[in-house]
Amino acid sequence: MKNVFVIGVGLIGGSFALDIKKLDPSSTILGIDKNESHLDEAIEIGVIDEKAKLEDLQKADLVIVAIPVDAALNVLPEVLNHVSDNTIVFDAGSTKEEICLKVKDHPKRRNYLAVHPIAGTEYSGPSAAIHGLYKSKTNIICEVEETAFKLQEKALRLFSELGMRIRYMNPKAHDKHIAYVSHLSHISSFMLGKTVIDKEKNERDIFDMAGSGFESTVRLAKSSPAMWTPIFEQNKTNVIETLDEYINNLKHFKKLMEDGDFEAVYKEMETTNHIKDILNGIQ
Amino acid sequence: MKNVFVIGVGLIGGSFALDIKKLDPSSTILGIDKNESHLDEAIEIGVIDEKAKLEDLQKADLVIVAIPVDAALNVLPEVLNHVSDNTIVFDAGSTKEEICLKVKDHPKRRNYLAVHPIAGTEYSGPSAAIHGLYKSKTNIICEVEETAFKLQEKALRLFSELGMRIRYMNPKAHDKHIAYVSHLSHISSFMLGKTVIDKEKNERDIFDMAGSGFESTVRLAKSSPAMWTPIFEQNKTNVIETLDEYINNLKHFKKLMEDGDFEAVYKEMETTNHIKDILNGIQ
Repeated sequence: MKNVFVIGVGLIGGSFALDIKKLDPSSTILGIDKNESHLDEAIEIGVIDEKAKLEDLQKADLVIVAIPVDAALNVLPEVLNHVSDNTIVFDAGSTKEEICLKVKDHPKRRNYLAVHPIAGTEYSGPSAAIHGLYKSKTNIICEVEETAFKLQEKALRLFSELGMRIRYMNPKAHDKHIAYVSHLSHISSFMLGKTVIDKEKNERDIFDMAGSGFESTVRLAKSSPAMWTPIFEQNKTNVIETLDEYINNLKHFKKLMEDGDFEAVYKEMETTNHIKDILNGIQ
Repeated sequence: MKNVFVIGVGLIGGSFALDIKKLDPSSTILGIDKNESHLDEAIEIGVIDEKAKLEDLQKADLVIVAIPVDAALNVLPEVLNHVSDNTIVFDAGSTKEEICLKVKDHPKRRNYLAVHPIAGTEYSGPSAAIHGLYKSKTNIICEVEETAFKLQEKALRLFSELGMRIRYMNPKAHDKHIAYVSHLSHISSFMLGKTVIDKEKNERDIFDMAGSGFESTVRLAKSSPAMWTPIFEQNKTNVIETLDEYINNLKHFKKLMEDGDFEAVYKEMETTNHIKDILNGIQ
């Protein structure tokens, strides 16, 4: 692909840019971002080749929209207004129902593929972009039948070259399940961090006692609030449902402890150890 | 040190054994474990040199007690009954108040050093033992003044050779703070695993959607229930306090979402991002 536009030159968009350039050094990577200093930084560290504007999109072969999910609702229709019939546009947002609804009746709907690559780190911005982020990762594609077949093929070829495995799903099911395996983890981690930091106010040395277990469990609390707030907003109903179940499970565990029923506490943990087998299936 | 006894040849005891043998290849590592097959395995994979019995402890230079904290309450006094005046004995348990109380009036109290190395992985058993587990890790020592000075020195020399940094603390403060930075993380992780597994009963494909973020957050849910149940039991009051605060923080986050106050949701996460700076202090 000759002209590849990346809208949002952060961790997700930037990592696509790096790998695409590596796959095809003759391609030109053009960056669009509302943050001018991010564009400068992305050029400086070699994540993109040039800055561009929405008006340049008519020459695009591929457009990747990798911005917070609230901004994407406004930007994606604009992008579709500008692209040619042969351009494939995909997003990378962590919610899919609202964006699919937003462009449902857009005249260029068939140029758009709704995508959610399950990949990332807790860092953000152009400097967070890394080579190989998408290798062996799951890529969820929603409403595939709404995208022109030839353009689907273009995108699927790229995903295959990046080493991703594809899962097809409808947007409603995507948003419901991703609330459990991704959105809830972020909240559990943020609130764990908050609980411990609140304690620290009075107790200075507490973090000297923290080890790798704590670090792993609060890792996601480093994530970007600008990215995550609109995700929670768009997926509010599902996320609240998962939070309810999580809080109930914690209350139950606390009750068992209060009752001194440590046989049951043991069983709770033993049953959940089954997560080992499940995680073996995750890269 | 010539004769080093490791009681409990799992992750913690086994990793001490491996490093001590490397530091001094002329030392003999003797293993004691109620699980005979663990002893056989530990010999086979070179974690210990020989099996031994409590009766052999009179020839010990160093004894490391690395067994679940409920078992340690019974085993430690027995160990002290057997050792000579020149033997240093330390444990590695994650709770310190009850064990210090247990041996408070033991005639050999001055042979014992109460230790909690903040190190580990989510795995257990002899095969989980690894070289270098303790390098750059915090080692909390409680009631140091209760241990004979010459024996303290022996233990501190070893910890220094292993690359550990020492923090002194009283048992009550230790148990209170460790509830926040270690015990609570384990419960948050176990209950996150449970919440998602419960969902999976009806929805088969959900784990295909899980990524590295979920994996990191539920990693501790792989931990051993046999090790963790007695820790929660001994530290019940402190752990329940942390659970109360954690549940309240989660409820507050949920309430903000229900009220649609996503500005406040943003602020909650932004404030907690400060965990980055704190974690930079952890290896």
